[in-house]
Amino acid sequence: MSEQIYVGVDLGGTAIKVGICDAEGRLLQTFEGPTEVAKGPDTVIDNIENYIRRIVEESPYDWSQVAGIGAGVAGFTNVKEGVILLAPNVGFKDVPIRAILEERLGKPVKIDNDANVAALGEAWSGAGKGIDNCVCYTLGTGVGGGIIINGKIVQGFSGMAGELGHIAVIPDLEAIQCGCGKMGCLETVSSATGIIRMAKDAVERGDRTSLSLLEDIAAKDVFDAAKAGDEVAVRIISRAAFYLGKSMAAVAVTLNPERFIIGGGLSKAGEFLFEQIRETFKKLTPEPVTRGVSIVPAQLGNDAGMIGAAGLFLRS
Amino acid sequence: MSEQIYVGVDLGGTAIKVGICDAEGRLLQTFEGPTEVAKGPDTVIDNIENYIRRIVEESPYDWSQVAGIGAGVAGFTNVKEGVILLAPNVGFKDVPIRAILEERLGKPVKIDNDANVAALGEAWSGAGKGIDNCVCYTLGTGVGGGIIINGKIVQGFSGMAGELGHIAVIPDLEAIQCGCGKMGCLETVSSATGIIRMAKDAVERGDRTSLSLLEDIAAKDVFDAAKAGDEVAVRIISRAAFYLGKSMAAVAVTLNPERFIIGGGLSKAGEFLFEQIRETFKKLTPEPVTRGVSIVPAQLGNDAGMIGAAGLFLRS
Repeated sequence: MSEQIYVGVDLGGTAIKVGICDAEGRLLQTFEGPTEVAKGPDTVIDNIENYIRRIVEESPYDWSQVAGIGAGVAGFTNVKEGVILLAPNVGFKDVPIRAILEERLGKPVKIDNDANVAALGEAWSGAGKGIDNCVCYTLGTGVGGGIIINGKIVQGFSGMAGELGHIAVIPDLEAIQCGCGKMGCLETVSSATGIIRMAKDAVERGDRTSLSLLEDIAAKDVFDAAKAGDEVAVRIISRAAFYLGKSMAAVAVTLNPERFIIGGGLSKAGEFLFEQIRETFKKLTPEPVTRGVSIVPAQLGNDAGMIGAAGLFLRS
Repeated sequence: MSEQIYVGVDLGGTAIKVGICDAEGRLLQTFEGPTEVAKGPDTVIDNIENYIRRIVEESPYDWSQVAGIGAGVAGFTNVKEGVILLAPNVGFKDVPIRAILEERLGKPVKIDNDANVAALGEAWSGAGKGIDNCVCYTLGTGVGGGIIINGKIVQGFSGMAGELGHIAVIPDLEAIQCGCGKMGCLETVSSATGIIRMAKDAVERGDRTSLSLLEDIAAKDVFDAAKAGDEVAVRIISRAAFYLGKSMAAVAVTLNPERFIIGGGLSKAGEFLFEQIRETFKKLTPEPVTRGVSIVPAQLGNDAGMIGAAGLFLRS
């Protein structure tokens, strides 16, 4: 067994997930251990090192086969320097993680933020397999994104490319302020936070909806109510889907990707959501730019981060 | 003199402009001859061939130094196959120009559309020199664009990337239909056509403006009137500038380019226009994505096409 393997690390606030991939992006082995944020950054770094050593030891592969180690983390990263600038979930601030791990492990290391590595994972080995140009949306608490052109992550000038949740698509008269300080960002409407806010507003103003019976409202409740025909919930989900489709129209005339991939918690709403997004996209995008373009769910789920991190070596 | 040179062809409806560039994008020699569209595609192709041979013969360079020939044309192109699909200005339909010229000239040939080659020219050797990631707008009859990432043109899945004039940024209630069939595209407002339309609308409905004294209105008249303080003209130019800045905000969170370059006839309005665009961009874009980002005029004027075409060999 002399094939090269790639180790991907998904560094989260609760768990560190480590995976071994081959050069085709197949996930061969995984390991998950606690992050132990409370014990401080030194322990977290020790854990990363130990989990990486451990997964390779427990695998049928030899340490000499490890061609590179990639890591993805939620937060701001300086990809070129290999520094995690700020990752509140894991308690990291200005941690030169690449230099540290390269010294300890004797292998080349690359890092990137979680949205980019998840996008790369999907593009490499999931819903974008075989597709050179794709754009990934992650619908969760916010709306994240990642842009893959010619098989590689687009970083942008200062690593800010793919901030799709901050495309301002909401008309001025309906816009509210986003966490970023600007008005009308996509994620004020098309994220879990946005959906919950619209649902709570509806309940508060006395709209007739089954959601008013709930003690607390989660985004899933709104989807379930909409699927059951609750008109208020249908309107909220339609709005979330419409502005996603509208933002994709803007991205499509800019980058003309072959595929849009939608992941994250909300994407589990399935065809109910996707049909509405596709309809809006088709309606708002010049026809030649829609030809052959698909909008599909992500396939890798929580493995996307590990796989994409491993892929940093081949695809960045 | 054994350095390699690159020949760039700007294939227009009236003239064929041919330039010789070195590997740094310096324009060393130019030649311009009539396209002679009326004589049919065969004559146009003969002219391209002859002008290319002629410029090299008349130059201090030897034919053996020609490393490649690039051509840009207004119209739809299949870059991969080297076919001009439809270029009404030059009377070409499904012309496999690459194969034809490669056979006749014995040199490798690449083609692309005029907006992309102009963007590449500016990025390579003009206002984007030394900048890896930039986005070019061309403000003319319509609004064209070109995206340069890591120094190379982004083509997109079907060659439609960079259609920035079709980002729908105009609010629904003010939107009119674009030539592409969709509502609210940037180019309905921020092109010469859009500015002239808004000016004529104002005159027709009796707005008090110096523009009502003109027999016919050109975009330059509206700029001149605005600079002279005509309130109606000021409002029209502000609108054109605002939506340009708004579209750049969307592009910036998607691609995070380091520089926006604005060329085309309208860009000659200079700082009067650019200041308003920059102000809107700054207002509508999350601050971290504006940091270090500049919005500047194109530098190469009509030479951008020749230079970018020559650059297809090194930068695509």
